Amino acid sequence: MTEPLKIAIAGALGRMGRAVAAMVESQPGLVVAARFDRPGIDAEGLVTQDEAMSLADVIIDFTTPDASAALAQACAETGGPALVVGATGMKDSHIAAIDEAALAIPIVRTGNYSLGVNILMGLVRQAARLLPPDAYDIEIFEAHHRHKVDSPSGTALMLGRAAAAGRGVELDQVAVRGRDGITGERRVGDIGFSVMRGGGIIGEHQVTFASEEEIVTLSHSGIDRSLFARGAVAAARWVPDRPPGVYDMQDVLGFSKEA
Amino acid sequence: MTEPLKIAIAGALGRMGRAVAAMVESQPGLVVAARFDRPGIDAEGLVTQDEAMSLADVIIDFTTPDASAALAQACAETGGPALVVGATGMKDSHIAAIDEAALAIPIVRTGNYSLGVNILMGLVRQAARLLPPDAYDIEIFEAHHRHKVDSPSGTALMLGRAAAAGRGVELDQVAVRGRDGITGERRVGDIGFSVMRGGGIIGEHQVTFASEEEIVTLSHSGIDRSLFARGAVAAARWVPDRPPGVYDMQDVLGFSKEA
Amino acid sequence: MTEPLKIAIAGALGRMGRAVAAMVESQPGLVVAARFDRPGIDAEGLVTQDEAMSLADVIIDFTTPDASAALAQACAETGGPALVVGATGMKDSHIAAIDEAALAIPIVRTGNYSLGVNILMGLVRQAARLLPPDAYDIEIFEAHHRHKVDSPSGTALMLGRAAAAGRGVELDQVAVRGRDGITGERRVGDIGFSVMRGGGIIGEHQVTFASEEEIVTLSHSGIDRSLFARGAVAAARWVPDRPPGVYDMQDVLGFSKEA
Amino acid sequence: MTEPLKIAIAGALGRMGRAVAAMVESQPGLVVAARFDRPGIDAEGLVTQDEAMSLADVIIDFTTPDASAALAQACAETGGPALVVGATGMKDSHIAAIDEAALAIPIVRTGNYSLGVNILMGLVRQAARLLPPDAYDIEIFEAHHRHKVDSPSGTALMLGRAAAAGRGVELDQVAVRGRDGITGERRVGDIGFSVMRGGGIIGEHQVTFASEEEIVTLSHSGIDRSLFARGAVAAARWVPDRPPGVYDMQDVLGFSKEA
Repeated sequence: MTEPLKIAIAGALGRMGRAVAAMVESQPGLVVAARFDRPGIDAEGLVTQDEAMSLADVIIDFTTPDASAALAQACAETGGPALVVGATGMKDSHIAAIDEAALAIPIVRTGNYSLGVNILMGLVRQAARLLPPDAYDIEIFEAHHRHKVDSPSGTALMLGRAAAAGRGVELDQVAVRGRDGITGERRVGDIGFSVMRGGGIIGEHQVTFASEEEIVTLSHSGIDRSLFARGAVAAARWVPDRPPGVYDMQDVLGFSKEA
Repeated sequence: MTEPLKIAIAGALGRMGRAVAAMVESQPGLVVAARFDRPGIDAEGLVTQDEAMSLADVIIDFTTPDASAALAQACAETGGPALVVGATGMKDSHIAAIDEAALAIPIVRTGNYSLGVNILMGLVRQAARLLPPDAYDIEIFEAHHRHKVDSPSGTALMLGRAAAAGRGVELDQVAVRGRDGITGERRVGDIGFSVMRGGGIIGEHQVTFASEEEIVTLSHSGIDRSLFARGAVAAARWVPDRPPGVYDMQDVLGFSKEA
Repeated sequence: MTEPLKIAIAGALGRMGRAVAAMVESQPGLVVAARFDRPGIDAEGLVTQDEAMSLADVIIDFTTPDASAALAQACAETGGPALVVGATGMKDSHIAAIDEAALAIPIVRTGNYSLGVNILMGLVRQAARLLPPDAYDIEIFEAHHRHKVDSPSGTALMLGRAAAAGRGVELDQVAVRGRDGITGERRVGDIGFSVMRGGGIIGEHQVTFASEEEIVTLSHSGIDRSLFARGAVAAARWVPDRPPGVYDMQDVLGFSKEA
Repeated sequence: MTEPLKIAIAGALGRMGRAVAAMVESQPGLVVAARFDRPGIDAEGLVTQDEAMSLADVIIDFTTPDASAALAQACAETGGPALVVGATGMKDSHIAAIDEAALAIPIVRTGNYSLGVNILMGLVRQAARLLPPDAYDIEIFEAHHRHKVDSPSGTALMLGRAAAAGRGVELDQVAVRGRDGITGERRVGDIGFSVMRGGGIIGEHQVTFASEEEIVTLSHSGIDRSLFARGAVAAARWVPDRPPGVYDMQDVLGFSKEA
């Protein structure tokens, strides 16, 4: 019989860190081997990042882009453990740092660990391929709670990239964001984004394909935040034995990346 | 027995002009007394604007802000007929011209002649008054067809003003439009707008009140464009006997303007 | 300065009992004076029903119809405390027992303690009064989690009664439930119900007014179950000083019962 | 250069017959070769069924199950033309008659000719295969206008069969229709149906996959009834050169029937 998989949790005092810890503890074959948070924060049961790295097979990290990039570099230098990264709002420099670390260790990185969202991405890519751009307009709507600071959400942009990929175009060349004022008629081929913020909305995403005659809508709605913890833990089970490289949930779930 | 009410139709060759003519012809007690369009357009059955003014008890006008303002002035100078104006996208100068004309004749002017939308406005005002701003965030979403050139729609702004009125604030001071990028957390009291454009969507409007624990949504969806023609014809029946002044559908429908 | 209000919690070990206790503890001016559950259940911190009755100004009870009716009778016999009852699925006999107890003590009883739902009821009644039955069909849709055993939900039926009241009819005479098979065309004046069950859906309610040309929809969506605890605690603050009688959240919130 | 394709229209006086005729006339390479309706109906431009059969390459038929079955048999006896059948509400006997006719001629038969709905069927099948039944409950909601006499709609049942196929089960063994009263908890693996009827709703279909933590929804909404005419005309272009047999829109659109 194999040992339980040893998981360390970065940002252990944060909301996601606590949700991930609870999820790990609820599943067989896994153990929380270490919990750590930013240097200088002292709380019962926390260890240092270095200690966590030495104790774990894999680290789950829902912290900030800066902290995640630094952790990836540190893990790469020591040759392990594997990483599951859930920070959103990364800039190109953060992504480059993680890509470089992934030359040495396996890393799962995605903006959304939900099974449903990742399946939706595949369906959106197919629908975008099958519904002709001159007849069907693609629009992406998302809604989140009042505390979210960026818009559109990282997941909305992921869905936009899936739609663009289905059409064989780059999202940046067709994205229309923040419509306001006299915008003129909609251009054929555009992918539009709209954003709602309010209350405690956990997360809604909706991809609409609208022709003159019909509308197809593919959507996702979060009920419970443990959603993301569940997917991250599934990624943590999957990633330790992989070759170095950057993976996403499409890989973890075994989906083909072909439309 | 009274004579049928004589209605003239401005912009008679346009899509709304034709829909209004069909609606007038489908109802008892009404007659299409004259049809006219822009000067220089010649088509069977059209008369001039002057002829139309002399033949009609009331003119229904879904044309442009410029044409509507000019027609209102012309009617005011001759002391009649009454007007029902449905042009959207008016600037302050157009509104001023219509207000001045309304010193001489009765005019109904609104951005949306639907019964449902006008009832919704009253309900939105009440909900905004009853749901406290520190707990409930108000967001307004609208979707229209690909040919619409302005955003948010005039009706979305009307609904926003109804919500702001329910809270005793001015919409301009709390409206947030075109969210994009790093916006920071939502401010208490803001009223947000989001906009979708695609295909043949006739018109969707949705006012959301979201707290940490629940969401109340009041929405309207158009099925058939004859919707607006029906309301305009109801206004045409109502307006000829009124004193000079500017009226809206809340007046036509007999709704109190109190929340 | 007044003493804090002393609240006892029936069904203290249940999910709603625990949510109510947490809500009471989070608010100033309130104290959990006693917790009790079914006889024979022994857990730390529980007292008997009789002890709870002697310690509290008001009891909040989200248990079963039988237990609620028996508690109401017991409280009535001893002349107090006041009651806030949230049990759903009551039969006429349970309601009669509570009505009788309310000759002696004040009782708040409703199937839904949410502020949003109670405001929605008032809006539905108004819309039903304003939108003529021969043109606008009323339909009520609700969705709940997979564990819910009754359909339509008590809240859906409350909304149906609000709609029927707005039209001056009895719900029982116009309700259409469980459509299936060859039903024939919809009859003018019917109020239809449809029901979805799945996953962890907290609770969706949607009242639709559909004409040939437009749709008005008034809806409510739960994000967090503490929603109901908050309303029940608001009722508990309100009820102790009232004369004997049965009250609902429209009373607690101070809404007029006129459409 | 080839001749234009000669299309005959059954039920030419009905709403769908007229919509199909308009669609044929709006497209290049097609001609309305004949129009017919029930025997005994006499209107300008109509021919008999026998004449129509002799004049056309393909007949588009949105009539009744009885009339469609009889037409299919007549066409089979004379060895042509091909058929595109859109009647809904067919019993086993009608389907058997059409299957028999299809030994002699090619026939497209489906309950929904929309491109969007047919793409949705493929996506539903995939999602049902990927989302495990013990965690994700499948529910199908549909809404139609007040004149629709059967429920759930044929399209809702098609979507249900697609979902069941994705899970490798028979819809009849898992379908739950017309929920009402004390139904008990939802059973794992059930596929539930709910139905709304009202006003002029053209047609809404929504397939929901709900877990404790998230909801994925795939939906379709009709904007304009010419939707179905467009698909039927596409089928009419495709079917004349096929070998005898029964085809559906998945064949016409060239979709794989594999999940």
